[in-house]
Amino acid sequence: MLSIYYFCSMNQSDTIIALATPSGAGAIAVIRLSGNDAIIIASKLFKSIHNKDLKKQSTHSIHLGHIVDGVRIIDEVLVSLFKNPQSYTGENVVEISCHGSVYVQQEILQLFLRHGCRMANAGEFTLRAFLNGKLDLSQAEAVADLIASDNEASHQIAMQQMRGGFSSEIAKLREELLNFASLIELELDFAEEDVEFADRTQFKDLVERIMFVLKRLIDSFAVGNVIKNGIPVAIVGEPNVGKSTLLNALLNEERAIVSEIAGTTRDTIEDEISIGGIGFRFIDTAGIRETKDVVESIGIKKTFEKIEQAQVIIYLFDSEEFNVHSSKFKIELEKIKNKYPLKPLIVIANKIDKVDDVQEANMQSEIPEIQLLSAKTGFGVEQLTNALLNLINTGALRNNETIVTNTRHYDALLKALEEVYKVKNGLETGLSGDLLAIDIRQALFHFGEITGEITNDDLLGNIFANFCIGK
Amino acid sequence: MLSIYYFCSMNQSDTIIALATPSGAGAIAVIRLSGNDAIIIASKLFKSIHNKDLKKQSTHSIHLGHIVDGVRIIDEVLVSLFKNPQSYTGENVVEISCHGSVYVQQEILQLFLRHGCRMANAGEFTLRAFLNGKLDLSQAEAVADLIASDNEASHQIAMQQMRGGFSSEIAKLREELLNFASLIELELDFAEEDVEFADRTQFKDLVERIMFVLKRLIDSFAVGNVIKNGIPVAIVGEPNVGKSTLLNALLNEERAIVSEIAGTTRDTIEDEISIGGIGFRFIDTAGIRETKDVVESIGIKKTFEKIEQAQVIIYLFDSEEFNVHSSKFKIELEKIKNKYPLKPLIVIANKIDKVDDVQEANMQSEIPEIQLLSAKTGFGVEQLTNALLNLINTGALRNNETIVTNTRHYDALLKALEEVYKVKNGLETGLSGDLLAIDIRQALFHFGEITGEITNDDLLGNIFANFCIGK
Repeated sequence: MLSIYYFCSMNQSDTIIALATPSGAGAIAVIRLSGNDAIIIASKLFKSIHNKDLKKQSTHSIHLGHIVDGVRIIDEVLVSLFKNPQSYTGENVVEISCHGSVYVQQEILQLFLRHGCRMANAGEFTLRAFLNGKLDLSQAEAVADLIASDNEASHQIAMQQMRGGFSSEIAKLREELLNFASLIELELDFAEEDVEFADRTQFKDLVERIMFVLKRLIDSFAVGNVIKNGIPVAIVGEPNVGKSTLLNALLNEERAIVSEIAGTTRDTIEDEISIGGIGFRFIDTAGIRETKDVVESIGIKKTFEKIEQAQVIIYLFDSEEFNVHSSKFKIELEKIKNKYPLKPLIVIANKIDKVDDVQEANMQSEIPEIQLLSAKTGFGVEQLTNALLNLINTGALRNNETIVTNTRHYDALLKALEEVYKVKNGLETGLSGDLLAIDIRQALFHFGEITGEITNDDLLGNIFANFCIGK
Repeated sequence: MLSIYYFCSMNQSDTIIALATPSGAGAIAVIRLSGNDAIIIASKLFKSIHNKDLKKQSTHSIHLGHIVDGVRIIDEVLVSLFKNPQSYTGENVVEISCHGSVYVQQEILQLFLRHGCRMANAGEFTLRAFLNGKLDLSQAEAVADLIASDNEASHQIAMQQMRGGFSSEIAKLREELLNFASLIELELDFAEEDVEFADRTQFKDLVERIMFVLKRLIDSFAVGNVIKNGIPVAIVGEPNVGKSTLLNALLNEERAIVSEIAGTTRDTIEDEISIGGIGFRFIDTAGIRETKDVVESIGIKKTFEKIEQAQVIIYLFDSEEFNVHSSKFKIELEKIKNKYPLKPLIVIANKIDKVDDVQEANMQSEIPEIQLLSAKTGFGVEQLTNALLNLINTGALRNNETIVTNTRHYDALLKALEEVYKVKNGLETGLSGDLLAIDIRQALFHFGEITGEITNDDLLGNIFANFCIGK
């Protein structure tokens, strides 16, 4: 725990300040101070309109007045007080809600810098919250994830983690393991008497249980990762087959809601779409028909490279075209199936509004798994979104189970699993208590890394450097 | 006052909502609600961690909890309460301080829109503050000016206006005039008796005083306008004479402060610089030497066009060059002086570090008003900033006198002056009381336009449309 004391002595004695709202002009901006002297410093530079002394006001109260530099009035502001420990950081915190002019923001920041505050580093408010025990490390990390979240699923995972879902699961395992470790270590004190305080059968059960949970958490990383970063979907289809109309149709429902909020525009709707709260990244590819043309075969190579990156393939073609040369499409489809037998594949016949019932039946008999769709009329779009959502194993997500999205946690879980596996082997081979204890301690170490009970300066530096300033 | 009732019935019954902080991701964002039902709506969608009922909490208090949509938790937030009439708008106001993710902001806005709020129009919070008598119209306009202010002078003017400096000066004149108007109108009731309640000599004094104040305010508009928009300064000088080094040297002191604040960069330092709190817009021009070359003479014409737009001219040349062909520079300088006899002109010999004392003395004897400078070493830079600041009549600014910056106010003042002038003429020519009263009423009308006692929907629409949403 040396690292924590080091951080304490380095940072915690001074009062930090930063703009907490996005930079730029707006109706209001919020400037945040944290530190022992936050309220004392603010009371010198703030004149309440009711002549109230900030230092004597209660926590969670708001005060109207002016930020003043001597006789010069910088702005009319609202000041919110949060007293140690009832604040985000656990220290005294003052939030100044000022007019959103960039000039005013700067003047206030500079005034406070001249009066004993220092600019906060990226993530330093949350770092202090962690050091003061308001959040554990995985909760602190979830704060950054929450701010970065841009769809329902990633937001939900971050919220759950921030509220301690992940930490409490880890903490439970850690406590049980620690319990057993103590018993094993107690045995060592009575080594000459050859007693077993720790019931080996119970212990084996526990180890099995821990391994089961660890494996589940580790497996969830794959789901967590696609949820956090969006699921890559390759659309294989020639130009004019209706790709962008399809993407617009998929986006349609979401868009209707989004457009009500002024100032929210999506620049890249052709690339990334949120469906049912899950992000999908669509990758546009060309067709892959057989060819002897050199240039064209380079294009086909590129198509395969793009499919390689995707987790889902949509094979999209024009229903009218199909009725002209169906064999071409069937050959392409076979080629994809052969090359990627394990990748989920959705086959879509677009522009179904342009063919008649006979042609429709013909397509369905030739390609049984075909889904009929008209991006133009909207027919079949809902069926496609359901198909996409079904492909993702969102069971865990829907059941509020813990999902791991953080690579650091994933690595620590893998290492913990490795150590627990050693413990299991040790138990099976009748390894002596002192050697078992070493492996158990090592597993506990990796659990502690996740929640921040075990940490070091470099690690903290890395984690909090990814935060924005002011958080 | 019909207009106000119209606005009331249209807007005031519903609860408006908007993002109050700049759009984009940041540590936190603030969403603001205002309206009779603001607290009731918020209490339905906010679960306090202490199970407190928002409706029962006192004004100016802050509460930690979650914004929830049924069982789904959207975010952990702080909610600030401001109860009617102790709020910015004078209505019930709720401010939600949430995590600064764009997704979270949108989810919260959408949730509240679904529960009876409506998106606020631009400036609608301030419009309500005006309609509820929290601000007069000129104060409301100052709020927008304050947010847009980007230097000390424009900020100070906006602050003074927002705090009622301008309004109170107008209100004082109005009251005195109103007083006299009543007396004159009283005379009309006793018309047959031929009495004079209003002392004509006193009245003349008052009218003179009002005209004096109006003229001062109208004159201040020229100063106010340059302060608000920055003072245009043309730098006449050939390439490589050291213009950008000079601008950097001028900016140097300010920049040292600015660079301490992360995230504040000035992209166009070559164009706009704040010196001593006043904004200067530097306009780069070429030299203007005599030429027969057609292309070059087009360039010279452009130089003159740019000088035309400027309020100050800096003639900048290279000291070394001067000693080679001084006559060229003297001819150029004469040409500028002849063409713009009234524009303030500063003559700068740059690169003074490259010439010796004899050459220095020579320049000073040939051009007595010359200022020696070295942008490279910094010599003479302070003298230049002083010269620039002295050119601006900042007497009014420094003395905290009212400065008019708003074109609408300027127009109203001009119209009021015209009417008061008619009143003065009427008094001198012994105009009858009933006709005098009409002119006085007309002057009072224009005063009322400034503070918003006289208004109409179009005017209010124009004013508040210039605000940002959320203010």
